[in-house]
Parts: sequence; C-alpha cells; structure tokens
Amino acid sequence: MSSISVPGSEDEKFSIADIIAKKRDGLALSPQEIGHVVKATKTGQAQDCQLGALLMAIRLQGMNPEETMTLTKEMVDSGCVLKWPEKWRGFLVDKHSTGGVGDKVSLPLAPALAACGCKVPMISGRGLGHTGGTLDKLESIPGFRTEQSPEQMEEILKSVGCCIVGQSKNLVPADKIFYHIRDVTGTVDSLPLMTASIMSKKVAESLSALILDVKFGAAAQSPTIEEAKHLAHSLVNVGVSLGIPTIALLTNMDTPIGRCVGNSLEVIEALECLEGRGPEDLRELVLHAGPIIYSLSATTTICSYILRVHE
Amino acid sequence: MSSISVPGSEDEKFSIADIIAKKRDGLALSPQEIGHVVKATKTGQAQDCQLGALLMAIRLQGMNPEETMTLTKEMVDSGCVLKWPEKWRGFLVDKHSTGGVGDKVSLPLAPALAACGCKVPMISGRGLGHTGGTLDKLESIPGFRTEQSPEQMEEILKSVGCCIVGQSKNLVPADKIFYHIRDVTGTVDSLPLMTASIMSKKVAESLSALILDVKFGAAAQSPTIEEAKHLAHSLVNVGVSLGIPTIALLTNMDTPIGRCVGNSLEVIEALECLEGRGPEDLRELVLHAGPIIYSLSATTTICSYILRVHE
Repeated sequence: MSSISVPGSEDEKFSIADIIAKKRDGLALSPQEIGHVVKATKTGQAQDCQLGALLMAIRLQGMNPEETMTLTKEMVDSGCVLKWPEKWRGFLVDKHSTGGVGDKVSLPLAPALAACGCKVPMISGRGLGHTGGTLDKLESIPGFRTEQSPEQMEEILKSVGCCIVGQSKNLVPADKIFYHIRDVTGTVDSLPLMTASIMSKKVAESLSALILDVKFGAAAQSPTIEEAKHLAHSLVNVGVSLGIPTIALLTNMDTPIGRCVGNSLEVIEALECLEGRGPEDLRELVLHAGPIIYSLSATTTICSYILRVHE
Repeated sequence: MSSISVPGSEDEKFSIADIIAKKRDGLALSPQEIGHVVKATKTGQAQDCQLGALLMAIRLQGMNPEETMTLTKEMVDSGCVLKWPEKWRGFLVDKHSTGGVGDKVSLPLAPALAACGCKVPMISGRGLGHTGGTLDKLESIPGFRTEQSPEQMEEILKSVGCCIVGQSKNLVPADKIFYHIRDVTGTVDSLPLMTASIMSKKVAESLSALILDVKFGAAAQSPTIEEAKHLAHSLVNVGVSLGIPTIALLTNMDTPIGRCVGNSLEVIEALECLEGRGPEDLRELVLHAGPIIYSLSATTTICSYILRVHE
C-alpha cells in the first residue's frame, strides 16, 4: 500500500451501521459521516433497511443546525447544480411554499417577478398529503410540459423570465431516495429532513434570493404557528449558511387561499389574479411576497429574517 | 362484495406506515398490529426500509411486556412448531445462554441431561460479536452435521436423547429477516427484540421447561448486572406468558469460562468435563443448571423465577 492519501479513502473509515448507532444514541454526526451516508445512499451501498433506521433515528433524536446544514449541502452535491449566465446574478429569485389547500401563489407570482426583470427557475413538486401540487395544477393546461432539462430551463428563462418545472433526474438524486423512504416510514415530519429536502433543491437552483412561505393552520401542513416557526428558522438558517439571502413569511391558513380548489380551477383563478382581478387574499399574498423577494435579490450582504404576517 | 367476514381481511385495515408512526410516537401496538407486521415481514409486503424504521422505533421507544409477548408469539406462528411424541411431555428441556467468551456449557449440559432421561432438542446459533457459537464449536468435529430436519431431530432424540442443531428453514422465518436487519441497523441491543428473537426459537421447540443463562461482565454481551437483570426478567416473563416453565440464572462472566477459547479446544474441554475432569467453573455451571432444569421440567404449574448466582 502506498502512503499517498487516496481521495475518497476517508470513507472507508466509516460504517453505516456505526453512523446509525451514533445517531440512535443522540450524538451529533460529523460532516464526514453525513457525507458518507449521502454518498452511500446515492451509490446504493447503504441498504434500504439502514436508511429506514437512520431516518427514524434522525426523526426521534433530531439534528443540530450544523448537521442539518451539512446534510443539505451533501444532498446538493449528490447531483448537478444549475448554472446561469453571469449577468443574471442578483436577479435569480424563487419562492417556496410549504403548501396548503388552494395554494396557487406560485402561479401568478413567478410571471409577476419575471415581468419586473427577475429570473425565476422554480422547481416545484406534486401534491403532498391533502394539499395539491403546483405541477399537477399546471398540467391541467393541455400540452403543458413540466419536464425540462437545465438547458431548456435556461432557454425559457431567456425568453419569458420564469419557468415552473419538475425536479430533473440529476438534481439532488439523494433527496428522491430519502423522500420515497420518508413517505413510507413515518419520517416525513422531521424538521432536519424537511429542511434538507426543501433547501437542497433551492440551493441547487443557484439563486440570488429565496422567499419561503411557511404556512400554519387547519388547511396547512403545520397546524400550529410554533411548528411553522421552528421550520421557518431551520430553513432560513440553512439558506444563510449556504450563502443564499433567505426570508420566511409565516402565513396563516385556516381556510383555503382564494375561492377555488382543484387543478384547472386554480389555474383560472391565478390568471384572473395576473389580470388584477381574482380573490383578494391571493392578490395580497402575491403583492406581499413579490416586493420582498425583489428587494432581497438586490442585497449584497446575506441578511435573513423571518417576517410574520396574517396571523 | 360479500358481507361474510373473510379470514385475514382484518389485515387490510392496517398500514405498515401507520404502525411505524404509532411506535415512533411511543404508543403501544395492538396484538393485531404486531400480527400484521410479522405477517407482512414474512410475505415481503413490508419494505426493508419500513422494517429498518420500525426496528429503530422499537429500539428507541421500547415495547411493554404484552407487546413483547405478542411479538414473540407472532414470530413463532410465522413458521412451523416442532411436535414431539406425547410420552416426552415433561421431559423436553433446553438451556439458552446469552453467550460469552469460552461459554461451552451447552456441550456437556445437553448430554448430561439426556443421560438423566431428558429430551433436549437444542437449537443453537453461530458466533455473535466477539463471542463464539455452539454450532461453530461442534463443527470443529470432522463430519459433524448441525443441519437436521425436524424428523431427523426426533430420530436423534429417540436414540441419544439430545441434539444440538442449527435453526431450520421453516422455524421462525420472521426472526431470520429481523435478525439480518437488526445486525446492520444498530438495533441488536433492543430488549424486546432480543427477547422475541431468543424466546420465539425456544417456544417453537415445544419445551416442558427452559433454563436461561443470562451472563454479565467483561466477557459477556451485557457488561452490567442491571442490563442482564432486565433481559432475564423480560425473557422469563415471555416464557411464562407462553406457557413454558422458565428460569433464569444471572451469572458473572468477567473472565472466559474454563481455560480454553477456540472451537476445537472448547470441544475437548467439554469432553473432559463429561468425564468428571476439566476446569472447575465449567463443571460448577453444568452441575448448577442441570438439576434446576431437571426439577423444573417435572413441575405441573408454570412457576418462573430468577436465581442469581456467581455475582
């Protein structure tokens, strides 16, 4: 054996079983250990039963902010990161909502921001639990394609300024694996796992600024404002740590947004909103989030804060 | 659909993900839920990631004595149960040790009990962690076969009164699946999982009485007497609940038993013990455990107690 350090040989010091046992005992994992787990997840070296056990240990024992940030970063590094023309720097913005019934804010907000000169490379998702998904809503438009390659995304951003697409194959592949497992193992509602899943996809978009709409209430994923606040803090913390100016709104959602629930009905309502009509609560959310994210993208220092509205 | 109750249709009311979430939240699982998990494990309906998550939830949240007993019983029912001639009732005994370095007590004890008229259908295991396995030791005898069918076991018991064999394919198949997963997910040292794994195999042997040698100390699996005591109580409790007179010895093991460690050396030492020679501590353990289990097999009431010796 040579005495020269081989890149990657560090990994051989770690066993997945030992890492699981450490988290099981409530200890913090080192960046190297988290890196090893994410790599082993991507290569298939970690067995499914091991991932299930580790995610449950994380769900029950938690992760500190540094572990959560490292997990997010390693998940980003498990795939490609989007690259944009240099001149777009300072204009690349996105919004993420934790979702709720009738939440169609992305549909009018993305084109509104594009109309102000922003570039919005929004990667969105499907319905989760009882709430609808932005992609599902868009696909109610005949012929609308939510699958676009990074090159196609750049073309769309050049011509219309915004796109709303699904997560492409090479973007954060570790999240896809974790997500499937979380879904069937009772580990969806883990603060660090939710944070890493949401933020890894946003970091991979190479944004200038990000706004998060963290909802609470009867029609949202988080029933209480306390839960929503914890999630908002965790998301903003990771955004800042990874160099993205990030702001979170805590918005009450005891009733659905707007008057319509259902994919095509929500698209129609969003179009009405863009024409200056439509329900007032939807217009208010768009007009509240839009200027904030627009201003935030122009900042040069990484400031982050949590605003609370609509309590 | 018919209104007649279909056997097994109960199971369709349960989802593995819901059962995992219930245990994750520290709640006790119902007998029906435990039964569903074990059946789904055997049929492959439960995904590996789900079993990993559930075993970790059990490791961290525990199981009460009733859940542990039900898990054991359902694991027994996942396979065949050994059946013996009616006239052997009251004579079928076995001993299980939690193991430790140099623990060769089974090798002289089984034939000694057979010489007293007992039938000893001992199903034993391989080395675990740093401790050796009874099967590995026996296989150091050229030509010794530890794989025997239930029919072959009965033949051996008829002719020589005792056999020490490996776990056959149809005996407690759920344990094999759980065991592999526990081994790689940091969930080996779970009290209810250890109890169910050990006791399911013993219950499947259809015994008249069982003696458990629960070891503690530097050369044992449990370092402290407190841990050993908890395990002993859990094992005895399940034995009683499932109708087997069971007794547990807590024995100190700060140094290996006897003078020899190593498969063939330990077989030689066991043979010396059977000839009335060999190391004193080994002889003492055999002479202590033997009369207890012999007396216990003759009881008609299911009494169980924990004796502490060698502290």
